[in-house]
Amino acid sequence: MRVLVVNAGSSSLKSQLIETDGKVSLMKCLAEKVGTPEAYMNVSFAPDFRKTTYNVADLTVAQCLAKLLEVLVDDPESPISGLQQIDAIGNRIVAGGEYFTKSVVIDEPAREKLTACEELAPLHNPPADACIDMMRELMPETPQVAVFDTAFHATMPAKAYMYPLPMRYYDEYKIRRYGAHGTSHRYAAQQAANLLGRPLRDLGLITCHLGNGGSITAVNHGKSIDTSMGFTPLEGLMMGTRSGSIDPAIVTYLMRREHKSFDEMDAVLNKQSGVLGVSGVSADMRDVLRAAATGNELAELAIDMYVYRIQKAIGGYYAAMTRTDAVVMTAGIGENSAELRERIFSGLAHMGMILDHERNDVTGQIGVNRIISIDDSPIKICVVTTDEEMRIARETDNLVSQLG
Amino acid sequence: MRVLVVNAGSSSLKSQLIETDGKVSLMKCLAEKVGTPEAYMNVSFAPDFRKTTYNVADLTVAQCLAKLLEVLVDDPESPISGLQQIDAIGNRIVAGGEYFTKSVVIDEPAREKLTACEELAPLHNPPADACIDMMRELMPETPQVAVFDTAFHATMPAKAYMYPLPMRYYDEYKIRRYGAHGTSHRYAAQQAANLLGRPLRDLGLITCHLGNGGSITAVNHGKSIDTSMGFTPLEGLMMGTRSGSIDPAIVTYLMRREHKSFDEMDAVLNKQSGVLGVSGVSADMRDVLRAAATGNELAELAIDMYVYRIQKAIGGYYAAMTRTDAVVMTAGIGENSAELRERIFSGLAHMGMILDHERNDVTGQIGVNRIISIDDSPIKICVVTTDEEMRIARETDNLVSQLG
Repeated sequence: MRVLVVNAGSSSLKSQLIETDGKVSLMKCLAEKVGTPEAYMNVSFAPDFRKTTYNVADLTVAQCLAKLLEVLVDDPESPISGLQQIDAIGNRIVAGGEYFTKSVVIDEPAREKLTACEELAPLHNPPADACIDMMRELMPETPQVAVFDTAFHATMPAKAYMYPLPMRYYDEYKIRRYGAHGTSHRYAAQQAANLLGRPLRDLGLITCHLGNGGSITAVNHGKSIDTSMGFTPLEGLMMGTRSGSIDPAIVTYLMRREHKSFDEMDAVLNKQSGVLGVSGVSADMRDVLRAAATGNELAELAIDMYVYRIQKAIGGYYAAMTRTDAVVMTAGIGENSAELRERIFSGLAHMGMILDHERNDVTGQIGVNRIISIDDSPIKICVVTTDEEMRIARETDNLVSQLG
Repeated sequence: MRVLVVNAGSSSLKSQLIETDGKVSLMKCLAEKVGTPEAYMNVSFAPDFRKTTYNVADLTVAQCLAKLLEVLVDDPESPISGLQQIDAIGNRIVAGGEYFTKSVVIDEPAREKLTACEELAPLHNPPADACIDMMRELMPETPQVAVFDTAFHATMPAKAYMYPLPMRYYDEYKIRRYGAHGTSHRYAAQQAANLLGRPLRDLGLITCHLGNGGSITAVNHGKSIDTSMGFTPLEGLMMGTRSGSIDPAIVTYLMRREHKSFDEMDAVLNKQSGVLGVSGVSADMRDVLRAAATGNELAELAIDMYVYRIQKAIGGYYAAMTRTDAVVMTAGIGENSAELRERIFSGLAHMGMILDHERNDVTGQIGVNRIISIDDSPIKICVVTTDEEMRIARETDNLVSQLG
């Protein structure tokens, strides 16, 4: 089945055309700075994936997607020559709230519920919904599926997803922990089970998705029982530009002191904090590691804090599960930064998580799923590559195939 | 030395007259609902401690203290007949900021720095400072000492006390983790070392102060290296009426949705949340345990959440320290609720914290420092009674004796 995967962000569009039978990608697209005069869209096709850049200045995310469809039909390198050759569309949705606990085919009732979810991720869900509507207009016969970042976390018990707030905020506004990166955590857990050669249902895993955003999930017997992101993706770990968890009293304190609007305060916590805010160097951990190596003390502090907060989160989930078999590292930093993994696990050897320094080395290993702990480490450490688009394509294939 | 210990709250005054040589209390005072028409003050004297209740309607906290001095001089049961028989005054101060890393004799520069700390604990520090000023007026010759809740945590490393926020908030407003309950954590750690028969400097301890407020501290080699309360006492554990840590994005979300003022939002998080907010029953864990026992599901949920968040915090500090020798329980709930301890540690046996159910039983054991884990539990569990006033009196004695 040929699935067009659509991953719409607040100011970006990622898309792939995936042939699920061979698990191969036929087209890759990345549009960035969408909505600005500097917006551009790179499209490339198998087998070479040579990029062609398109000007998409001032278009919306959904309009970029329409533009991509034109390219798909018109470009001589494209594997398709008509939109009817796309069998299904798989949409990544950040927040599914309590409405969606698994992936769904988007029919009329589902489309309405998606609108209700928009306020849970006001930056991400609306452009994704706009893409869905654009595709319904342009390809009305093609089935669409929604795959949710939150769905994997639907199995959390109440003690993990409820906040210690007056109960009416849950009743009225559904304020609770939803988590995110669910597709990635689920995939990482399954890949780790494959590496360990044991069924996922027998394992206790702590999966660490460490990219520009970051979250850690306790996956017990294949189910998410807790995760560090919360009502929004702001909670939990220190991230590239997000603060993660802080004393909630700081929010009102800063708004008072600096007469900030809600939007300004949200921007401080989501866009100007985290690794960027502390280091003053960059939100990109690679830049910050380089700066620290040349003696930048704030960069070193940012890394220290980043690592320490991950260690504490791992400890928290270690306590929450009755047994931990492995810690699983995935996403940009988790997969690619041997130095960060070294720093994280050098502090956790007393917990039985003992890194093998040679296996941890990345040379020639990028993209290779593997165990990086020593042979007799009581708790294994795994590195697995995340492939969100491929997973969305397969989920879409599964559901659309059942439509018959 | 006879020390008058003064513990001023936002609407309460606790005081004791303590003879530090014999470590005995000669007078106990508790004023509550201070500042309201219903305010009352109970005063009692050794050896019987029969309470006499005084009407202190509409007085300030400092005025209640002045009233207490009158009682101390006039009451025939009082062990003193003149104020000159009080050798020193020990004041408990909630927030010492970065100005105070240990207890100090209050001279003019110290008094000025205390004013600078007021904004760090706007409910608690100002009435304490007002009490200090009242005593300087009434007993100008008597030395006063300030003992800080935050001082014990001055040893935290930057990775634990810094927040992942833009650095200028630390530079300009000193926004960082200060912690609280320091006097209690320090005392509990020392008592645990005594119980274990080992020097504090050799131990890794996790001290849990669980009262109406609650915090957990990692005490490594006698020093606080991290603690769950933060810039204010709101952060960290779920408490009687405080939410503890939540997604910081919830703060702006709720203010937007309900058009709340900063004060209203702070009140929701500090006064209407936590065990009270979830259970709807009470902020007092004893009431909530009773309600849960009769089938109240929200009470049961509140307890589940309360316990789970403690377990995760213990796990976090277990990760943060290279070795944990004991977990130490203190304060109202920590000392007195065998049921809560049972629930907490029944989920932590896999971490080597194994409760002995008989030793955990409180019958006839209230106030007895003891080890409540099984003999071969890899990590010991201790219960110690907190005695904040006695500790403040002894600190005061130490410093005043050095004045010569």
